[in-house]
Amino acid sequence: MKFNRMLPFFWKNDVLYILDQRKLPFERKYYKCLNYKDVVKCIKQMVVRGAPAIGLVGGWAVVLAVKEAKLRKFKLTKFIEDAVNKILSSRPTAYNLFYVVNRLKEFILSNENAGNLYELTLNEMVKIQNENSESLMKLVKFGVELLNKNSVVLTHCNTGALACGDVGTALGIIIEGYKKGKVEHVYVDETRAYLQGAKLTVLELMTAGVPSTMITDNMAAYVIKQKGVDCIIVGADRIAKNGDTANKIGTYNLAILAKYHNIPFYVAAPFSSIDVSIPSGEYIKIEERSDKEVKYINNKLITLKNAKVLHPAFDVTPSELITAIITDCGVYKSPYNFARI
Amino acid sequence: MKFNRMLPFFWKNDVLYILDQRKLPFERKYYKCLNYKDVVKCIKQMVVRGAPAIGLVGGWAVVLAVKEAKLRKFKLTKFIEDAVNKILSSRPTAYNLFYVVNRLKEFILSNENAGNLYELTLNEMVKIQNENSESLMKLVKFGVELLNKNSVVLTHCNTGALACGDVGTALGIIIEGYKKGKVEHVYVDETRAYLQGAKLTVLELMTAGVPSTMITDNMAAYVIKQKGVDCIIVGADRIAKNGDTANKIGTYNLAILAKYHNIPFYVAAPFSSIDVSIPSGEYIKIEERSDKEVKYINNKLITLKNAKVLHPAFDVTPSELITAIITDCGVYKSPYNFARI
Repeated sequence: MKFNRMLPFFWKNDVLYILDQRKLPFERKYYKCLNYKDVVKCIKQMVVRGAPAIGLVGGWAVVLAVKEAKLRKFKLTKFIEDAVNKILSSRPTAYNLFYVVNRLKEFILSNENAGNLYELTLNEMVKIQNENSESLMKLVKFGVELLNKNSVVLTHCNTGALACGDVGTALGIIIEGYKKGKVEHVYVDETRAYLQGAKLTVLELMTAGVPSTMITDNMAAYVIKQKGVDCIIVGADRIAKNGDTANKIGTYNLAILAKYHNIPFYVAAPFSSIDVSIPSGEYIKIEERSDKEVKYINNKLITLKNAKVLHPAFDVTPSELITAIITDCGVYKSPYNFARI
Repeated sequence: MKFNRMLPFFWKNDVLYILDQRKLPFERKYYKCLNYKDVVKCIKQMVVRGAPAIGLVGGWAVVLAVKEAKLRKFKLTKFIEDAVNKILSSRPTAYNLFYVVNRLKEFILSNENAGNLYELTLNEMVKIQNENSESLMKLVKFGVELLNKNSVVLTHCNTGALACGDVGTALGIIIEGYKKGKVEHVYVDETRAYLQGAKLTVLELMTAGVPSTMITDNMAAYVIKQKGVDCIIVGADRIAKNGDTANKIGTYNLAILAKYHNIPFYVAAPFSSIDVSIPSGEYIKIEERSDKEVKYINNKLITLKNAKVLHPAFDVTPSELITAIITDCGVYKSPYNFARI
């Protein structure tokens, strides 16, 4: 697959390399992360983004912490505890991060006296990563089955291999759907503030040879009506027990537009994005990011420097607006009950 | 009024000066228009924008054409006919342009043998401009009456003095509403592709001392729900006989969001924006502009150079989504019947 050249991260010789997605599509530069703090910095500064990818690099950060504790002979439990807390607070909305990091933490604590703990942790992380790929392939299969032939699809943000480490969620379904004759054309929201649609999704679709047209976020209703969009597919950062879904800011907008135009609105996310400890979207913490990320585009101001600006990175779409949630464990519909199918 | 320093255009010594709004809020530069073709260029290239302002500078372009015909001893009827056609085709969606230019054309044709035709035309244009100011003041008064005390308002694009030559439509209501205790806070869509909200509306609100927060267009649903927006007010470029309204791309999005959240959606425009010759929005020609205006922000690419991009400058909001249309002749509600009240 051509796309392998653009892995969002890879592990080599005990070091994690993370692709700087902020520089895409114009430049491909990998950051070398020697310790977990390097990874935390990359997550915070959006070098890497996308909930599943954040989960995986968060996991690799834990592996790096074990390496560091071993090399520098730190007291393991305390050091891992600290590292895990710092990694978890790097982006508060993505649930996959909690899933992967907590799983590794438990694994480490139950193997803390093993002489080869580092190797064991590394193997566990490779296992998680393989499970991730398998899950995404299952998810994509379920998603493609839902689509009608020759669908015109609208998507938001980036949910491809760059966001997921492999295959993709919503964009994985779209690309695979195109190969299977299920998708005819894709409209891509540019996705302000960070322009992940413009920078990453357009790149992934063009690389995969899928016909696409980019639009500004505010064109969505026009395009749905005038171009006959058949469905909207987006990813998710965290899904509450009742199906309420946190995803990139603008998702809630789109869900309302889908309802008004009476077209399906699909959320695609690994089962590990579902946080059943949260009864509804009200309890999901929405990350507010710096206003500079809105005020500056390509390092240039777009408004007055002292203008007041809001920057919620996510919004919550109430489950009643979601036609179905596509996971690796099957397709769920309202009323949502996330027992594994 | 402080704001006079930022007139979108002014006439002085037989020359029209047009403020380059593309350079705002960072730089204030006026273009000197010596003939109608200079004005056409300014309209096409978005030096000046906003339907009422385009109407007025279009009118001044006709005055310049009369001056030129007189100076260069051209055959008046033919020259004016040509000029009028070129002026009218500069931006196809704004109806005010048709209103002002056609009124002047008729005036010229019925006075074509007058020795002082230039002076007469100039006086007629001053009259139109004064009528414009009076209309806007009436419109603002009607609009402010509709608002409840301490409203939180959301607006799109720019509809202030910069867009209207004077006072403003939707933004005129908001600024006057603030002075009267009707408006507490304003959320401003940045308004991609051209960012008129970020560049112009924020500037006008800050100049007028009205508390405001800028958002990206895709944050609107989040803000309506989380911040308790009480109503949305926007302008219009053209209104059909049945109330369907063409306005800046993204307006249709907002109208759907307003309906879903059950808050009023107001359109504010001079009565001269109503084109009763058009039965419904289906017949309104939507200008498609260059994809470069989407792909480049501040002269820098935001996506791949060869990406396919759509750029409709406007969309049409069906009248059933519009709570009321506020004009200088009164407030109209569905079913729309635009006899002067």
